[in-house]
Amino acid sequence: MISTCLKQTISRALQPFPPTLTRRMSAGTAASRTDTTSRLAELRKLMAAHNVEVYIVPSEDAHQSEYIAPVDARRAFISGFTGSAGCALVTPTKASLSTDGRYFLQAEQELDSNWELLKQGLPDVPTWQEWALREAEGGKNIGVDACLISAAQAKSLAEKLKNRNGGELIGMDVNLVDLVCGEKQPERPKEHLRILGLEFAGKPFEEKLVEIRKEIEKNKGSGLIVSMLDEIAWLFNLRGNDIPYNPVFFSYAFITPTEATLYIDEDKITEKVRENLGDNVNIKPYNAIFDDVKTFGEATASNDQKLLVTSSASWALTKSVGENKISTIKAPIEAAKAVKNETEVKGMRNAHIRDGAAQIQYFAWLERALLRGEIYDEVSAADKLEEFRKEKEHFVGLSFPTISSAGSNGAIIHYQPEKSTCARVEKDKIYLCDSGAQFLDGTTDSTRTVHYGTPTPEEKKSYTLVLKGHIAVARAVFPKGSSGFILDILARQYLWRAGLDYRHGTGHGVGSFLNVHEGPIGIGTRMQYNEVPLEVGMLISNEPGYYEDGQYGIRIENVVLVVEKNTPSNFGDKKYYGFETVTMVPMCKKLTDPTMLDEEEKKWLNEYHSEVYEKTKSFFKGDEYTLEWLKRETTPI
Amino acid sequence: MISTCLKQTISRALQPFPPTLTRRMSAGTAASRTDTTSRLAELRKLMAAHNVEVYIVPSEDAHQSEYIAPVDARRAFISGFTGSAGCALVTPTKASLSTDGRYFLQAEQELDSNWELLKQGLPDVPTWQEWALREAEGGKNIGVDACLISAAQAKSLAEKLKNRNGGELIGMDVNLVDLVCGEKQPERPKEHLRILGLEFAGKPFEEKLVEIRKEIEKNKGSGLIVSMLDEIAWLFNLRGNDIPYNPVFFSYAFITPTEATLYIDEDKITEKVRENLGDNVNIKPYNAIFDDVKTFGEATASNDQKLLVTSSASWALTKSVGENKISTIKAPIEAAKAVKNETEVKGMRNAHIRDGAAQIQYFAWLERALLRGEIYDEVSAADKLEEFRKEKEHFVGLSFPTISSAGSNGAIIHYQPEKSTCARVEKDKIYLCDSGAQFLDGTTDSTRTVHYGTPTPEEKKSYTLVLKGHIAVARAVFPKGSSGFILDILARQYLWRAGLDYRHGTGHGVGSFLNVHEGPIGIGTRMQYNEVPLEVGMLISNEPGYYEDGQYGIRIENVVLVVEKNTPSNFGDKKYYGFETVTMVPMCKKLTDPTMLDEEEKKWLNEYHSEVYEKTKSFFKGDEYTLEWLKRETTPI
Repeated sequence: MISTCLKQTISRALQPFPPTLTRRMSAGTAASRTDTTSRLAELRKLMAAHNVEVYIVPSEDAHQSEYIAPVDARRAFISGFTGSAGCALVTPTKASLSTDGRYFLQAEQELDSNWELLKQGLPDVPTWQEWALREAEGGKNIGVDACLISAAQAKSLAEKLKNRNGGELIGMDVNLVDLVCGEKQPERPKEHLRILGLEFAGKPFEEKLVEIRKEIEKNKGSGLIVSMLDEIAWLFNLRGNDIPYNPVFFSYAFITPTEATLYIDEDKITEKVRENLGDNVNIKPYNAIFDDVKTFGEATASNDQKLLVTSSASWALTKSVGENKISTIKAPIEAAKAVKNETEVKGMRNAHIRDGAAQIQYFAWLERALLRGEIYDEVSAADKLEEFRKEKEHFVGLSFPTISSAGSNGAIIHYQPEKSTCARVEKDKIYLCDSGAQFLDGTTDSTRTVHYGTPTPEEKKSYTLVLKGHIAVARAVFPKGSSGFILDILARQYLWRAGLDYRHGTGHGVGSFLNVHEGPIGIGTRMQYNEVPLEVGMLISNEPGYYEDGQYGIRIENVVLVVEKNTPSNFGDKKYYGFETVTMVPMCKKLTDPTMLDEEEKKWLNEYHSEVYEKTKSFFKGDEYTLEWLKRETTPI
Repeated sequence: MISTCLKQTISRALQPFPPTLTRRMSAGTAASRTDTTSRLAELRKLMAAHNVEVYIVPSEDAHQSEYIAPVDARRAFISGFTGSAGCALVTPTKASLSTDGRYFLQAEQELDSNWELLKQGLPDVPTWQEWALREAEGGKNIGVDACLISAAQAKSLAEKLKNRNGGELIGMDVNLVDLVCGEKQPERPKEHLRILGLEFAGKPFEEKLVEIRKEIEKNKGSGLIVSMLDEIAWLFNLRGNDIPYNPVFFSYAFITPTEATLYIDEDKITEKVRENLGDNVNIKPYNAIFDDVKTFGEATASNDQKLLVTSSASWALTKSVGENKISTIKAPIEAAKAVKNETEVKGMRNAHIRDGAAQIQYFAWLERALLRGEIYDEVSAADKLEEFRKEKEHFVGLSFPTISSAGSNGAIIHYQPEKSTCARVEKDKIYLCDSGAQFLDGTTDSTRTVHYGTPTPEEKKSYTLVLKGHIAVARAVFPKGSSGFILDILARQYLWRAGLDYRHGTGHGVGSFLNVHEGPIGIGTRMQYNEVPLEVGMLISNEPGYYEDGQYGIRIENVVLVVEKNTPSNFGDKKYYGFETVTMVPMCKKLTDPTMLDEEEKKWLNEYHSEVYEKTKSFFKGDEYTLEWLKRETTPI
């Protein structure tokens, strides 16, 4: 599933709060707009009371999470825009919403007339920072909840504000949108944690602590503040249920050379979890981190050592410690987590085979249903896919809301169907399905684009251009030390030659029974992807696409594992790496134009299909129909 | 011709001074070493007298030139290493020379036992900065001629020195190597300037001044200091002869909204040049720039405006002005110069056709000579090539010393044959010839690798892998805004698949009757290439290679022009760009394995060969042999 943003944001699996007041996006009906007039009026009163002339409402929660819990959906509440990426800005007379190319259509459909849309990436459109700075010229203050903005972002904005003769950037303790929402704001979730056994995690948390402490020492730190939720879950081999689709839990962690403390609502900790953590880990209340790091910072201030944070640490955290006692480092836990251990790799392979079997059942079922004239809409079809997945071993839940999109809805890159308004799936229209699940042994994410009637030559051409890019990435061989950044052109080259392109990245890191998008790796044009070499054991998506607005969307996505390649030579003793595809679902033959594929591409496709068949066929014992469908779809071209 | 370095340095066309004391590199004989013992002893005495414990001897001159005049070859003099890229470091007891992969072999052959070689890019080898910092630990001073190091490099080094408890970085007014050399140091050249007529330059210098002044205004500057020699030559439509192969002249320029001053030894200015510059340009002595910018900086210090410099400005310059009065910007003249105007583009096309004709004559002649059993060595062969070039209209000289290399010498990436020691060109060995010329209407640079006997299957395979990469770049289509950085993988992908690679960049900008290497564009893995989008009218080389140490070298280089491509679609209204190849010399059919080329690649090759034939055939009237050779080499495969 696509990630184009710095924070790899995606369509969120949540209702903006309160759920009854707003609606998810529907297929372009006016009904999807929220009237934000009274909310904005209330917010503006509060802004005046707090002496703030520009108020920033970021998408993120206090942990810079990509997906958020309903309680944190402040930007959706105030603006009505429910996409995952975007920032809302409010002044006494204006309101603007900045988002990227994936969400232009959706934002136009959801925003009411109070809002101006800032389409990021189009020429002459200001970033939200530029817009805020312009509005703050002449000594006006900008306010933001200090928990919801990273220290680096705050610092950069404050400096620019100074240069533009603006007022102050005020990092506020109170959240003004929460005040507007009042009692209607949902509760913060309190579900119990789950221990992830060694048979899935592959490495005891005590060992992970030892390794992270080495990193702290290497970085000459007195301790490390951890605020990213998936890093905490990975570190302690714990999983939670606080954010839809993400098995994480609200918490902070603070690791020193001798102590490890988990800051969490104690209601979530069962006796078993407490026992499992033993004497190695202290447990303290969620908000106690702020006082603790402040005290720790003061006590160790005389040292040469600094308190380590990562770029995702909130401004509220770094303000607590004191900026001069902080050193910002590349996230060591994120880096360690990205390289899967043998148990995790095995789990990911197996999870993708089971997930592939579910998708094969689904696409075979869907074809028959549509050809028989049965009526399914985007939501009821996706529900059927979930049923097939649920039957599979170790299934926990979906890893993101299924993007089940028929015809022109496929061109809305992060479309989410709504039962009341969604379109019918039709055999004569392209159907794009981007879906994934959480299994105890791995997280899956794949996209197939199919057609059950007679596609047009143009549709076939577009699909095959995307497929050629997908295969070019899948077959890539590159020296150790190469990043995903440099691979991006492989996916786009054939589209470019036709004057086509897609407005999203080509790949994102995938967690192991964790977030479906995880850093630090990616395939795409963002410079930070060039800072991290691909290492053996990393998992990343390969998902080029093409979108014809108002017509159809095409995306072909597999998860691939970085492996060492056995090349004929080994120039420079570098080692050469490549990918092993772990997703196991056939491509759509009907949409493939074999005359556009060269011999190497055909070979790759035939070998992939043969592997899909061999690895999934055992799931269809007694299901002759699906097995026949699979055979048909995987015979060589 | 290859450029891998930040400054796009290459094998220099110069004798280190004094010429009688050192020798150019030869084909690996011990005779190529210079005994540096006494020079080092003298230098160390001077270091002690100046209270310097680590002395830096950079490659560059005061203008950060890639090629230097003999008078500036200080690093070659002190170390004996004559390659273009590298930095020498001397302490009271140690001496080290840092260089990159192109020069490992050459440096090993040239350095005597006083020197340690720091092979850049290999694991655990320190950069020269790291080496210097380590040696300076414990309060020791590092000294450097402030003219020979850029302000940015000096600042970064000084900061690190402070953090490492070193002493001071001393920017010296005197050059200690010059003192060691004494009277033996060559004179600074004093040849007359030449006016480049509008028929070649395409735009009056007065217009260029207007455009640059707009850039100064845009950057809120009080003036711009120009220190790069090719920028000055381009700006004033003047050419000189101070540095071998580079039609530039020692000078500085200082442009303010109302004045333009050229700082140059007045002996070089003829009456005609002075008349041409008219009242628009003041002329002052070369070294007067330092006092002038100091005075100007002081006079305008109260303004908000700063004095603009580019990253190539020397520390000596920025120290004169005062660091706080300086603002460093992206070089506006370099950027303007990179986009050729219509006259320059036409000139470059024509120059490359004439240059191609000379190469065709050469390769046809060489084949016949070798098959007849005539004896030619690398130098006498290269001399013949120069003869063919000299006959062509508008020829001025070579654009770099011809890399004429037979067999294993081809694997020394920047090999320069020496008459006394060079190898014979043999019909049964791969022969690599990288050469170029300066014409009044353009600068050429191309490499052909040929074989006149029966190449081995491995040689053919290597050649064809390189050719496939070359064709992939030549055929690339990419959206406007793309950089050369992202194209690099296209050139390497086929080699990587075989576990092969080359240790240099894929492309460099090319000047228009100016330096054969010019910024800011390039195709390669250096991050700065990603900061500059390729624009229509830019010229860049396309030169993948492969080098089998001790066996052979392969490189295929054409100069290509960025053009707009007429793609079937134009997604996002972006415009899609690609290349037009301007070099007109056939590839080596004998080394090409057609079974390794796909249909698109064959089509490109056949069309290219047909174009080469059509555009050059008129040069061979009355030269039946060459015409027949060309026909044979350009018939479709």
